[in-house]
Amino acid sequence: MSTWVEKLDSRAKSASSMVCVGLDPDPARMAISDTLEFNRRIIDATHDLVCAYKPQLAFYEAMGAEGFEALRATVAHIRAVAPDVVVVGDGKRGDMGPTADAYARAMFDYFDFDTVTLHAYLGRDSVAPFLEYGGRGAIIVCRTSNPGATELQDYVLEGTDGKTVYQRVADATEQWDDQGRLGIVVGATYPGEMAVLRAAHPDLPILIPGVGSQGGDVEAATQAGANADGRGVMISSSRGIIYASEREDEFESAARDATSALRDEINRSLPAASGK
Amino acid sequence: MSTWVEKLDSRAKSASSMVCVGLDPDPARMAISDTLEFNRRIIDATHDLVCAYKPQLAFYEAMGAEGFEALRATVAHIRAVAPDVVVVGDGKRGDMGPTADAYARAMFDYFDFDTVTLHAYLGRDSVAPFLEYGGRGAIIVCRTSNPGATELQDYVLEGTDGKTVYQRVADATEQWDDQGRLGIVVGATYPGEMAVLRAAHPDLPILIPGVGSQGGDVEAATQAGANADGRGVMISSSRGIIYASEREDEFESAARDATSALRDEINRSLPAASGK
Repeated sequence: MSTWVEKLDSRAKSASSMVCVGLDPDPARMAISDTLEFNRRIIDATHDLVCAYKPQLAFYEAMGAEGFEALRATVAHIRAVAPDVVVVGDGKRGDMGPTADAYARAMFDYFDFDTVTLHAYLGRDSVAPFLEYGGRGAIIVCRTSNPGATELQDYVLEGTDGKTVYQRVADATEQWDDQGRLGIVVGATYPGEMAVLRAAHPDLPILIPGVGSQGGDVEAATQAGANADGRGVMISSSRGIIYASEREDEFESAARDATSALRDEINRSLPAASGK
Repeated sequence: MSTWVEKLDSRAKSASSMVCVGLDPDPARMAISDTLEFNRRIIDATHDLVCAYKPQLAFYEAMGAEGFEALRATVAHIRAVAPDVVVVGDGKRGDMGPTADAYARAMFDYFDFDTVTLHAYLGRDSVAPFLEYGGRGAIIVCRTSNPGATELQDYVLEGTDGKTVYQRVADATEQWDDQGRLGIVVGATYPGEMAVLRAAHPDLPILIPGVGSQGGDVEAATQAGANADGRGVMISSSRGIIYASEREDEFESAARDATSALRDEINRSLPAASGK
C-alpha cells in the first residue's frame, strides 16, 4: 500500500509539477454559475499540469447541502480523469475523540480525499483518527501566510531551546507518525521560517499556500521548501488560476496558461543539482 | 441590538439553567434512525431546561449533504420552539481572508447559529469575519479537556511573564472585540486552569465541554468557571443526555431527566451568595 506522500512524490516526478490548484468556488467570480461544472472544466483544462487539487471546504459549506454534493462529485471527477493526482481536503478541522473520528469519516469515507489539512492545537488526539485509513493522512497547519500568524505562532516556548510555537507543531507532527503520512502547511510569505523548518524536517511534505494574490514569492518559497530531491512541496494557487479570466469563453484556457506558467516558474526556481 | 452573550445571560437567568445540550447524532446510538426527527424530539423534551444547544458539525458532515440539511432544519426547529435559547455551531473552524469570510457565511447565513467555536491559531484574521454579523460572535478554543491538550497549550511563552499558550489565547480573545461577542472554550477536566482564566477574564463567557463521559467534575467546573453573578458558563453534555437511553420508547424522558439532573447539579454547586 502506498501513502499519499508517495503518490504525491511519484506524481510530482512524472508530471514535472509541484503545482496544487485550489478549487475555491466563489459565486461572485466564477465564469459560469454551476459549481460542479465550473470545477470539472477547470480540472479538465489543467490536470496534466498539476500534482494536486485542493478544494477549500469553506466555499462549499457556504453553499449548504448543494455545495457538499458538488464537492463530493468534484473529487469523483478528479478520480475519473486524473487518478494519479493527490486531492487535498482543506478544511483545517481540529477536534478529538468521537468528534475527530466523525471528521475523518466525513473527509475520507464521504468526500474521498487523499489527505486533509488539520489544526493540531489539541495535540495528537486530533490527528490520530486520520491515520487509521491506510495510506491516507493529514497536513498540519504550522506557519500561516497571514499577518495575524505572528499573534501566536511566533512565540518562543520556554524549556525548548528556543523553539517557537510553529516549530513545536512541526516537531510534534514528525513524532506523531512513523509511516510518513503527515505533512505541514507553511505559508509562502515566510521563506525564512520555511527554510528553518525544511532544515529540521528534511522529509516532511510541505503544502505552501500564499503565492499569487497573497504576495508570496514563488522562487523564494520553492528554494526554501523543496527537499533534497527538488520536490516535497505543493505550491498552491487558487484565485490566480481559477479566476485568471472570469469570461466563460476563455476561463479554461486562462486557467491552463496560469497553471503552466506557475509550474514553469517553480521548476526554474529549483537549484540545478536537484530534480533527480 | 443584543449580542449572543446577552441572550445567553438572559436565558440562563430566566430558565435558571447553564446546561448546554450537545446534539451529536451518531447513527450507531440514536434511538431512532432519522437525524432530524431524533433532534426534534430531544429538543422538544428538553428546551425549557437549557440555555443552549450545541450541534457538533462533524457528526452531520459524516452524513454528507443530508446531514447538512438535517442540521439546518434542526436549528430552524430550535428557533421555532425555543427562540430564547442560544445555538452554538461547534465546528472549530480556523482560516483567514476570503476563506474565513466563507466560513462565516456558512455558519451564520446558511445554518443561522448565534455563535460558533473557532481555532485562533491564525490570530485575529480568523475571528474578524465572525464579528461582522451584528450581535453574533464566536467562542475561541482555549484549553481543551483531552490528554493531548498539554502537547501545545501548556507551554509557557517567553517574554510574557509566565503566560501559557492557552492564557495568551484568552488574552488575545479579550483584545479582539470590545463589544462582548467572544468567549472561550475550556474543558471541564481542568478546573485549576479554568479558575486562573476566570480570574483574569471576569466577563468572558466560557463554554465548558467534558463533563459526563469525559470525566469532568460538574461541581468543580461550575465553581471555577462561574462569573461573579453565578452565571457566564455553558456546561455542555451530549452523550450523557441524548443517549441516556437508546430505547425509542424512553429516550426523550431519559434525556429530559438527565438534563434536569445536570441543571440541578450545576445550580447546587454555585456559591450561596451568587445567582443574582
